Amino acid sequence: MTNPQRAPHLPLGEKRGGRLYGQHILSVKQFSREDIEAIFVIAEEMRTMVERVGTFDLLKGKLLASLFYEPSTRTSSSFTAAMERLGGSVIPISEVRYSSVSKGESLPDTVRTLECYSDVIVLRHPEVGAAATAARYVRKPIINAGDGIGEHPTQALLDLFTIREELGNLDGLTVTMLGDLKNGRTVHSLSRLLTLFHARINLVSPEMLRMPPEIMEELAAKGVTLSEHRELESVLPNTDVLYVTRVQKERFADEADYLAHKDAYVITPATLTQAKQKMIVMHPLPRVGEISMDVDDDPRAAYFRQMEYGLYVRMALLAMVLGKA
Amino acid sequence: MTNPQRAPHLPLGEKRGGRLYGQHILSVKQFSREDIEAIFVIAEEMRTMVERVGTFDLLKGKLLASLFYEPSTRTSSSFTAAMERLGGSVIPISEVRYSSVSKGESLPDTVRTLECYSDVIVLRHPEVGAAATAARYVRKPIINAGDGIGEHPTQALLDLFTIREELGNLDGLTVTMLGDLKNGRTVHSLSRLLTLFHARINLVSPEMLRMPPEIMEELAAKGVTLSEHRELESVLPNTDVLYVTRVQKERFADEADYLAHKDAYVITPATLTQAKQKMIVMHPLPRVGEISMDVDDDPRAAYFRQMEYGLYVRMALLAMVLGKA
Amino acid sequence: MTNPQRAPHLPLGEKRGGRLYGQHILSVKQFSREDIEAIFVIAEEMRTMVERVGTFDLLKGKLLASLFYEPSTRTSSSFTAAMERLGGSVIPISEVRYSSVSKGESLPDTVRTLECYSDVIVLRHPEVGAAATAARYVRKPIINAGDGIGEHPTQALLDLFTIREELGNLDGLTVTMLGDLKNGRTVHSLSRLLTLFHARINLVSPEMLRMPPEIMEELAAKGVTLSEHRELESVLPNTDVLYVTRVQKERFADEADYLAHKDAYVITPATLTQAKQKMIVMHPLPRVGEISMDVDDDPRAAYFRQMEYGLYVRMALLAMVLGKA
Repeated sequence: MTNPQRAPHLPLGEKRGGRLYGQHILSVKQFSREDIEAIFVIAEEMRTMVERVGTFDLLKGKLLASLFYEPSTRTSSSFTAAMERLGGSVIPISEVRYSSVSKGESLPDTVRTLECYSDVIVLRHPEVGAAATAARYVRKPIINAGDGIGEHPTQALLDLFTIREELGNLDGLTVTMLGDLKNGRTVHSLSRLLTLFHARINLVSPEMLRMPPEIMEELAAKGVTLSEHRELESVLPNTDVLYVTRVQKERFADEADYLAHKDAYVITPATLTQAKQKMIVMHPLPRVGEISMDVDDDPRAAYFRQMEYGLYVRMALLAMVLGKA
Repeated sequence: MTNPQRAPHLPLGEKRGGRLYGQHILSVKQFSREDIEAIFVIAEEMRTMVERVGTFDLLKGKLLASLFYEPSTRTSSSFTAAMERLGGSVIPISEVRYSSVSKGESLPDTVRTLECYSDVIVLRHPEVGAAATAARYVRKPIINAGDGIGEHPTQALLDLFTIREELGNLDGLTVTMLGDLKNGRTVHSLSRLLTLFHARINLVSPEMLRMPPEIMEELAAKGVTLSEHRELESVLPNTDVLYVTRVQKERFADEADYLAHKDAYVITPATLTQAKQKMIVMHPLPRVGEISMDVDDDPRAAYFRQMEYGLYVRMALLAMVLGKA
Repeated sequence: MTNPQRAPHLPLGEKRGGRLYGQHILSVKQFSREDIEAIFVIAEEMRTMVERVGTFDLLKGKLLASLFYEPSTRTSSSFTAAMERLGGSVIPISEVRYSSVSKGESLPDTVRTLECYSDVIVLRHPEVGAAATAARYVRKPIINAGDGIGEHPTQALLDLFTIREELGNLDGLTVTMLGDLKNGRTVHSLSRLLTLFHARINLVSPEMLRMPPEIMEELAAKGVTLSEHRELESVLPNTDVLYVTRVQKERFADEADYLAHKDAYVITPATLTQAKQKMIVMHPLPRVGEISMDVDDDPRAAYFRQMEYGLYVRMALLAMVLGKA
């Protein structure tokens, strides 16, 4: 297969056309700035339609196979809601660990079976590269909903859409990423997307949870202004977007190290007194204790609205890959 | 939040109005006699519509998030059927034990995420008070589908609706409750609802499984005629409704005690020779051996019809809280 | 109940009529040649409609209860897709091991509950005869989706429909069954159906995995020309349909035996050089290693198309038992 992002054949009677039509969504790297702007224009239309009428029949008659090799309530229910708000239906396959997969079936065979029944496949898999592998075997579009520590492109797009909707524009912002920047798939993908929008990125993490050097080099090579910090204080006052991630206890060599860092990365109302009035706090959720619940009522707390923006972005992507946007 | 039964904000474009509109369904204690009569009028309309056309599009475009922290096939499939027969869609979230919850996410965060995607949330949770807690954090209606040994209000409503449909009225009936009255959530809630309808209640149980004294006092204070018994025989002939519950082996201190009581609480065709011709036998199901399968063909056996009435009651509640009744 | 394949009562307002209307689908033995031809005519209409419009509203308002006591991604997602492509809805009940069933509820009680909510029940159960048992207790149609080592009639029908669609006719074909013919439920059922179509059947298996003698006698009594072989070579050149099944390691007494047979039953491109140009290779899937992935691009490899034909056959059966075909 020459181009894994191109699904070569499409069902009869399909009206063809439109950006992303028939394509797989595998990685943030596949998007140009123009792609992203097109997605966001449609996501905004979806937002307007949901607010006005709740659901509509754009994808009536379309079936989404939702194939989750590991559980992710948030992502799977978001895609289910997106498909149903567009009038389509969902085939949920969330028990794969118990079924034919446990009889040893390969991922290619499983997705080739599912494409017999469905029009688009959303895939969550614990292994890096799983979505790309699956995409080589099927003609229907695959949407990567997370492949291990690899990519989760729809999360990165919804993060970026949140920034656009909340702050009104995407260019020239100062984005501060806080917490575990080494293992956090979301901050890797988001920072890659931000290279398209002239961002300044502050990286704030414990030494042992720094952003991987190869990603920092990649960002720098694309012209991003990057700086690294151990503490939030110095960079918070100029921050437009504070992106908080979880610092998991099990990432630390010993508990003393964990305890030493834990509190330094917790956002409280006191923290936000140093922040601008027009800025937002984001988090990919679930949070455990990184952001105090006392922050929830601050209008800058955008992390629940972020979930809602995710719905619109996923609606847009489903409509686009099915040629109905 | 001043009133946890009032969801203050509602989606744009929503036609407002009607009893229970925008409210949470948390406890039987929230209902007046007028509320219940209004619910049953609509439940009866639902029954007529299902019998005539099967489904209809009253809730087309509405999404129900079905959030079950513990499995309950019967309750979850009843709500799913209710939503689908009304033309709505369901986001099933039944694997919460494996997913973000197991990463430590709080119930408030989970429901705040789900209300971004859905229009109403049905919640089953093992802890008493969980539904009320969830309701404090969301604007969309929450329906309590069982919170531990706490409440299961839709079950109590369907029990009462069954009595109304089967016997033609609700006032002045003699209701005999049999079995484990100590731990049986359903008999607690049903007896509370019966205080609104001038019932006489006979309580038949082993000594160690008596109805809790505080509930008996509550019922007596509301004017219910109550009496306690160890055997069914004396009260059966005057009984209009025989409500049977399961006597679980594990509730007894030793097996001899269990064996001594077990058979005394099993309903057989012979038992029913002492009952009126116009009376009904109910059971919340699942039954294990409390009612012999030989009773199933007796027209007084109402326990499977009870399941069907549950469908109509849940359809009515969904339509009402969404303002479409 | 006199006739377990006849569901005696049907919902009000139902337009009655048509072959299989209101019937249970329990066993391949219930079908005449005329039944099968009628099913296939409708399955072909379904194929045309799916290719032309994707979905349509023939079963709008109908609910399928999908009750799986053991997981089977392939079968459950095929029925879900079939129902949704016909405009109907699905109540998925796939966690029965955790829920009321584990509290000891009997299969009859579970299906009697589900028929209160739904219009048709698809049942997968690990015990032989479970579907027939369930059918004795309900008025809504039951479709057997596999009962242990018993029957899986919709699989057999889709196998036969695959042959018809791929080869253009069903009469007088030479069908070679390969692999584990002792434990393979699919080859037992398919061979029974083939007795209606004047087939010649070659059975190729290790000695210890031979087709059970009682089935061979049954086939012979119905006039099928049968022959048994240890090797594929002699029969492959005249084969119209090569039906491959999995040889599971755990069926062998010792590993040496397994290793001795394993490779003899693997289909590779080299194997197929000895086959006709107009023939097909089938497999019920999942495959593990019985057919090399190098065969997948051979136009004779029909096993993924087989999955798609299954969708059409299940759509036809659902429409027929609900009286809408």
